[in-house]
Amino acid sequence: MEAKLQWDHKMGFTASAASGHSIKIDVSTEVGGTDSGPRPTELLLFGLGGCSGFDIVAILQKMRVEVEDFSIEIVAQRAPEHPQKITAIDIIYRLTGADIDPAKANRAAELSLTKYCSVAASLNAEITYRVVLADLKNS
Amino acid sequence: MEAKLQWDHKMGFTASAASGHSIKIDVSTEVGGTDSGPRPTELLLFGLGGCSGFDIVAILQKMRVEVEDFSIEIVAQRAPEHPQKITAIDIIYRLTGADIDPAKANRAAELSLTKYCSVAASLNAEITYRVVLADLKNS
Repeated sequence: MEAKLQWDHKMGFTASAASGHSIKIDVSTEVGGTDSGPRPTELLLFGLGGCSGFDIVAILQKMRVEVEDFSIEIVAQRAPEHPQKITAIDIIYRLTGADIDPAKANRAAELSLTKYCSVAASLNAEITYRVVLADLKNS
Repeated sequence: MEAKLQWDHKMGFTASAASGHSIKIDVSTEVGGTDSGPRPTELLLFGLGGCSGFDIVAILQKMRVEVEDFSIEIVAQRAPEHPQKITAIDIIYRLTGADIDPAKANRAAELSLTKYCSVAASLNAEITYRVVLADLKNS
């Protein structure tokens, strides 16, 4: 797997990879950037959420669980001293659908984070999660 | 640090974070996605490159080293079995400028990867790097 980054002559970069997609990465104007894109550490959380979100959608499809809506909230704790490593990550998976079986939803999240998600397996932080279910019919 | 992701009802997500920037994350149509954005694992490499690229620019500025151009190439090895964890990452930093001191450039890269870069410190892969210098005056 490969990625390339081109400097923007301030503090930001344009990043591209084999998928053919490019994004801008930048930092705030306070540290010399132009705030033209998300921060590097934000991309790490985006990758984790996208990776495990994809797994959960695919696993629930195989379990024939119908999902109407799905959002993910991620909160990361960082060490105070440099390099401010990400030490702990808590993920809330919010699934909406008619009668989603909590056991199946939890199993899908567990399978993702322990067996399938490349990004989760590549991070050294402790990752915890919760699955929150909502049923629009009953709300 | 926080991030939120909203499912697109296929296999992709729109991710947003505190910086205010949103990006799409998706997979190929072969696995049910719509290829509307980079892959989750690509984002991890983008974050690593952006993070250490920022450090190197900032450190070289402090060292009063003038850089005319800067690009980064990242190659990652993944384990063959699930979860296909990223096991090794090799980074090439290509710096262009008049008479960039190789020792300073290498020191900047080393400082980033061992002391400052949050993303590098948050990954469990072995990370190696090379600094390649070019001087446009002499090319």
